[in-house]
Amino acid sequence: MVNGTNDRPRLTRKGERVRARIVEEAAALIHERGVAGTTLDDVKAAAQVSGSQLYHYFPDKNELLQAVIGYQADTVVTNQRQALLGSAMGLEAWRDMVVTGVTRAQAGGCPLGSLVGQLAESDPEARALIAAGLERWATAISEGLRLLHSDGKLAPGIDPDDLATTVLATLQGALLLAQVQRSTRPFETAIDTLLALAIKT
Amino acid sequence: MVNGTNDRPRLTRKGERVRARIVEEAAALIHERGVAGTTLDDVKAAAQVSGSQLYHYFPDKNELLQAVIGYQADTVVTNQRQALLGSAMGLEAWRDMVVTGVTRAQAGGCPLGSLVGQLAESDPEARALIAAGLERWATAISEGLRLLHSDGKLAPGIDPDDLATTVLATLQGALLLAQVQRSTRPFETAIDTLLALAIKT
Repeated sequence: MVNGTNDRPRLTRKGERVRARIVEEAAALIHERGVAGTTLDDVKAAAQVSGSQLYHYFPDKNELLQAVIGYQADTVVTNQRQALLGSAMGLEAWRDMVVTGVTRAQAGGCPLGSLVGQLAESDPEARALIAAGLERWATAISEGLRLLHSDGKLAPGIDPDDLATTVLATLQGALLLAQVQRSTRPFETAIDTLLALAIKT
Repeated sequence: MVNGTNDRPRLTRKGERVRARIVEEAAALIHERGVAGTTLDDVKAAAQVSGSQLYHYFPDKNELLQAVIGYQADTVVTNQRQALLGSAMGLEAWRDMVVTGVTRAQAGGCPLGSLVGQLAESDPEARALIAAGLERWATAISEGLRLLHSDGKLAPGIDPDDLATTVLATLQGALLLAQVQRSTRPFETAIDTLLALAIKT
């Protein structure tokens, strides 16, 4: 134990930057080509690091994969928080953000949700990390919905936490429909219909 | 051209049964192990046919895969129609059917939707067939919702076709959440919340 919290060596600021670059490039490759289609050699080339550098930060592909899942979860949760779903303007901004995001999703699907089909049945650790990331996403959505709820803007009798689960489910399924139909139309229809039902204008 | 509609030989009734058994066994294997994890040898063994019999019906894996996509689409559409979503009793029955179905989905996800992540980016023909299957499913949901609509049971201002897309998206996403969380709870929450918002009791 070096730093008292885990058994990884403490990183210098430069080390942190290199590690972050590796994770970011690996995440982009995995989103584009899938887990099975991405090799450590691809990641080395994209992040412009040597094999020994890559090994220094990630002794095996599983550790890198786990860092990628954490990175994608952080990204969606940060985006969710920045959208300020709780304000009326925030709701519009959030809707526009997810609809813009779906253009990326038409090739590759949701960066986090698309990992479920690839990993849930074969990699229990990855499954648990993806589940935790999606839970954090639902919590971030719920924070915004609670604000709308306390402003009296949710449909009567609806629990903000239940609605957050529903919004996340609809987002994931709508991304899947958009990916397979190569069109943003089903995505926009599903999100707009759910928001029209759940939120008073 | 043998039978005037396509270039496949017309099958005897026994031939139809053998072909159907091959497709059914292949569908079960693919749902359990994924497309990449299922070989033609696995299918031969499960359907108890010889290599030449399998080749007679399906000259390559792609043709078999396309028949499996059609089979899974037929299955979900038939189940959807039988649930009689349009009646009040039908709504309860439909909700119970999908919640029961999700127990299967906890390992493997939706038999049709789970193929999106595996095939949409690599196999354009399969992608188009899955998209067509999901469209047929949305149409079947819409038929039920139109009946509810004409009985005045939908939330005001909601188009039944738009709601059908939303229901299908929520189903797909809720199946994904159930699969990754190994729990039916997020699935039940999402479906029940959407139905509570969309349909008058």
